[in-house]
This record gives sequence, structure tokens and C-alpha cells, in this order.
Amino acid sequence: MPRQRATVREVAAAAGVSSATVSRVLNQQSSVSPETRRLVEQAVEELGLLAPAPRGGTPKPVDGAVYVRCPYLLTDYFGLIVSSIAETLDRHGRQVVLNAGEAAAHDPVLNRLPAQRDLAGAILILPPESSEDLVRLSSRRFPFVVVDPRTPLPRDIPSVSAAHHSGARQLTAHLTSLGHTRIGVIAGPREWLAADARLSGHHAALADVGILPNPALIRHDHPTTAHGYQAALELLSLTPRPTALIAFNDKAAVGALQAAAALGLSVPRELSIAGFDDLDLSQATTPALTTVRQPLAEMGRMAVSLLIRLLDRHALEALHIELATELVIRPSTGPAPSM
Amino acid sequence: MPRQRATVREVAAAAGVSSATVSRVLNQQSSVSPETRRLVEQAVEELGLLAPAPRGGTPKPVDGAVYVRCPYLLTDYFGLIVSSIAETLDRHGRQVVLNAGEAAAHDPVLNRLPAQRDLAGAILILPPESSEDLVRLSSRRFPFVVVDPRTPLPRDIPSVSAAHHSGARQLTAHLTSLGHTRIGVIAGPREWLAADARLSGHHAALADVGILPNPALIRHDHPTTAHGYQAALELLSLTPRPTALIAFNDKAAVGALQAAAALGLSVPRELSIAGFDDLDLSQATTPALTTVRQPLAEMGRMAVSLLIRLLDRHALEALHIELATELVIRPSTGPAPSM
Repeated sequence: MPRQRATVREVAAAAGVSSATVSRVLNQQSSVSPETRRLVEQAVEELGLLAPAPRGGTPKPVDGAVYVRCPYLLTDYFGLIVSSIAETLDRHGRQVVLNAGEAAAHDPVLNRLPAQRDLAGAILILPPESSEDLVRLSSRRFPFVVVDPRTPLPRDIPSVSAAHHSGARQLTAHLTSLGHTRIGVIAGPREWLAADARLSGHHAALADVGILPNPALIRHDHPTTAHGYQAALELLSLTPRPTALIAFNDKAAVGALQAAAALGLSVPRELSIAGFDDLDLSQATTPALTTVRQPLAEMGRMAVSLLIRLLDRHALEALHIELATELVIRPSTGPAPSM
Repeated sequence: MPRQRATVREVAAAAGVSSATVSRVLNQQSSVSPETRRLVEQAVEELGLLAPAPRGGTPKPVDGAVYVRCPYLLTDYFGLIVSSIAETLDRHGRQVVLNAGEAAAHDPVLNRLPAQRDLAGAILILPPESSEDLVRLSSRRFPFVVVDPRTPLPRDIPSVSAAHHSGARQLTAHLTSLGHTRIGVIAGPREWLAADARLSGHHAALADVGILPNPALIRHDHPTTAHGYQAALELLSLTPRPTALIAFNDKAAVGALQAAAALGLSVPRELSIAGFDDLDLSQATTPALTTVRQPLAEMGRMAVSLLIRLLDRHALEALHIELATELVIRPSTGPAPSM
């Protein structure tokens, strides 16, 4: 059962002060006398309530904080998720305790979380921990939500991710509709859930037009520009040459564009190239990149919403939530060259 | 005077337990009995000390948290600063309470900070608040450091920023050394300290080769790709046409590249274009952008270092710290065309 909240007016009536005074106390302004502050705090306590939710104006964190773990550099991708989580938690009056940056990856923090009394719960973004670690945390009844899980999670650990499979399937369908049948793939690490789901979406789209997957056309590695460059060079040295390359990450797609330029291939006339994520990068390239937009801000909002429902002990119906992606067509993809 | 810290061993001796047990208590592991936990906590308290600093292994936040306010989307620029701050504070055993995202800009949080007992201090990144607001916070003896101040600050408010003036001066000197004398500038908003300092650096480099500033060659606006595109179109319609454009931001420089493409101008043969910041973007463009790298990670580390010294009540000698930038020359700039 969620706890009910009093309005500012109800607390003011109980304390015998004005609503403005209650607001000043709740916002911890120093212009209130200690006696008055005590009266208001007592009223809040006697009503058996948390502090009232502010209506407009400045929300003041009153409930336990939420630990947000994102052990990566906060750039275009992770930064947008964390920004959205921070904004949404603020709207819920929850403070964000941030654990971020690459050094944090090696910090075994999960064990400590349940013992930290100031924390109400956590949001874990692409956690590097094993599924076993996450199950252990869950078994300690510490409320948390996973954004973009790296490995499959049991049904009772809530998660939010982009619809990797359908996003990749749409992208490949876009290419096959342009006549491409020999499509190279620069995929993420083999063991990542997202890479696996995107590859299966790619294969589904190929199957739709009667093409069998060809392992020779797939490269697995970390999603960097340098890797994309190298993988693209390899794929473009195959005979016959692929007429299109899909990178499951915009940074790797930038590397593929650079490889095409190095080989003197005109994009999209001789080679189509597509990315994934729709980072700012993808509009800065020449030609701009066809890509799949992930709903990063919405993923953040949904993660907060799931966590708040957990904290309020609402039942969660669908624990693994996938949010739809959007195919963004730009000039880097075009009709397959007739060969 | 900084408070002295006990070692784990000293606390263990005082409590009559092993060092491992002390570590377990400090890391809030649940495997310690309540009695033992009390003994250890008592020892820590009796020694008049904070918990010992962990040596290697996992640091556990034991001191007051640090409020990090960055009321912007955490993308390449702000995200890298926040990542660095989070990593560095973690190394100091300080928790990060994050306030981020564009919605946070309108949240008048500064007033509340001094009353929040769990906060030891704050780091404010490009604060949207007026200098008066920051002076008021400072007068309440709440320790804070400003990263990248938007407006001039009084001497006693510590700040860290990039050396905007010398960075821009180096960049313009690079262009004048290539023979450019008519250089258009796509600058940030007139009232921003950084825009002003960069413009003065630009003018200094022009003065070095005997060129007077020309207000017709300067456009002021927010640093977006759309604005850069529009400003570049305007500047390139002047007669005689500038032979080089400097954008005081890589995103605006991407807009300038797009404007050059729209006008059929070859970069750098007919027009040199340079950016500022060295975001990932600047390597994804064709040609890649000459730009000025800001030491974002180092700015974050330095801000934490200043704040920790404030908290330890060390004297701060130089309160306004500027960190050197680095000129990064890439193919988007070349010799001025002979006209």
C-alpha cells in the first residue's frame, strides 16, 4: 500500500501556521524560527505522513535517495539516460546518488547497497555485474531496476531496454527494400544481450526476403570508431564485396565511413552504411547516417517509474519492458549498386 | 586544520577486533554481529575521528556527500566533466548527489543547500544563477566550487575553467600563420564569460599580426549546429568572403561545414573551418575538424581537489584556476586561398 500524503494546507491547519510557513520549513529555509519549525515537523510526524508533495514550485527531496550506477563515461548515450533519470527522480522528490565513470566498473558496490539506510533503491545502467550478482541483490529485497541489461535477467528483476530486435529488423528491411542482399554487420561483443538481439533482428529481416545468414559477413567487437574502421576494411575486402554495412553503433559506423573513404568508395552510391543509436555524431558525418534512434530519455523515465512503483509496493505487471526504436533514414543509405 | 584519520589497524586495536572486521563494518556488510558493529563504531567515535580512509579496495563514502549541479543534458561536454567529478569524489570516499538535466535549470536549489545536513559542499557546473546568487550562497559559509563560470565571480569564490583566452589565441594564430586575414567568428552568447574570453584571445592573435577586429565578421548566438549553419551562411555572403570560419563550439562548426557544403565550397581548399571543445563530433566530420581541446576530465578532478581542500579548511592560494587547452590540428584548416 502506498503511503498517503498530506497537502501543505492540512499540515498548516494541524500546526496552526500558514501554508507559506509550512513550505518554508519543507524547503529548509532558515527564515523560520526553531519553535515554528518544530511545530510543523511535529504536525508532519503526527499525521503519520511523509512531507507533503509540493504543488508546483520547488520539490524538496524528502524520501530516500536513489542510487544511480552508470559505470561508464557519461557521453551522448549514457549521459542522456542519466539526465533523464535525474530529472524524473527530482520530479518525484528523490535525490540521485550517482556512481559513474569508467573507474566505477571495478567497484563492487552492489553488496553494500542494501545496508545503506539513506538509499531507497537503485537504478543500474548496463550493469557489468553478472546475472548471479543481480539475483543476489534482488534476494536481499533491495528494490532496483536495470536499464539496458547486458545479460538475460530472471523475470522478477525489472528491466527497461530498447527494442533491439525490432529496431535492427526495421533497419535491415530498409536495406533489403533498396535491393541489398549482401550486408556486412559490425556487431557488438558476442556476449552482450543487445548485440545478440540486434543480430537476430537482422537475420529475421533477411529471412523475410529469403536470405540465409552468412557468418562471414559478421564481425564482433567493442563499439568504437577504431574497431568499426578495421572491421569495415575486412568486410570490404571480401569477394563479392558487401553492398551495405550495418554497424550496431554510430561510432563504429563513423569508422566504416572512414574505411569507405580510405578505399575510395562513394557512399551511398557504391556502398550504403547505417548505424545504430542516433547519437549527435550521426548527423555530423558526410553523408549523414541512417540509424536507429533509441528512446534514451524515455528509457530513463520508465526506469524511474518502475522503481517508484516498486517502492510504493505496487504490483509490476510486465517486468521486462522494451521501448520501441525509430528508424531514421538519412543520405548514407541508397539503392544497391547493380554489379 | 584537516581532521586526522585513524588507520583501520588503529580502530581495530581500540575495538579489540581484527582489521578485517573493521573493514566489514565500514563497508556495511551484514555479516557482522550487532555487538561487534557497535564496538567498532564506538572506537571510531571515541577516537574523535571519521572512519579510516580505505587503503586500496573499495572506498566507502563516510563523509558528507557533495552536491553536483549540472543543469544541462549530460552529453559529450558536460557528461565528461560530471564523470570525472564522480570518479574523483568516489576516490575521496564522498558520495555524489546529482542535480542534472535541463529541467533543473529552473530549480532554485541554491537556497536550500546550506540547510541540508547530509551535504558537505557542492560543485556547480556552468551555473545559470547570477553572481549575486553565488555570492549569497558563499556568504552562508557553504563550501562550493564553480566549474566554467558563466559570469565573472568575486575572487573568494573558487572556480575552475579552461584557458579560453589562450586557447582561442592559439587557434587564430594557427589560421593567421596559414595566411588567413579575414576570419569569421561564430561566437557564443555575448554575456557568457567564455565567449568573451575566447573573442579577446582571437583579437589578441589578430593584433599580433597587425589586424584590427572587424565586428561585421562576428556573430553571437547559442552554440548549436542550426545556429552555426545560419551564422556561417551569413558570414559567407559577405564581400569579400572570409577565407576561414572559427566556431567557438564544435557543434556550431558542424553547422558551418554544412553551410560550406550547401554553398559548394571545398574545405579546406576554399574555406578553412575550425571548432572548439574537441567533442567526438569533431573527428566524425569530413574533413575532421581542427579544434581546441578542453581539459574536461582535468577540470573535474581539479574542482574536486579544490572542494576537498575547502572542506579540510586548507588555505586556497589561487582561487580562480585556468587549465591549459590544446590546439588540435586536423584537415579542416589549410592555407588561405590566393584571391
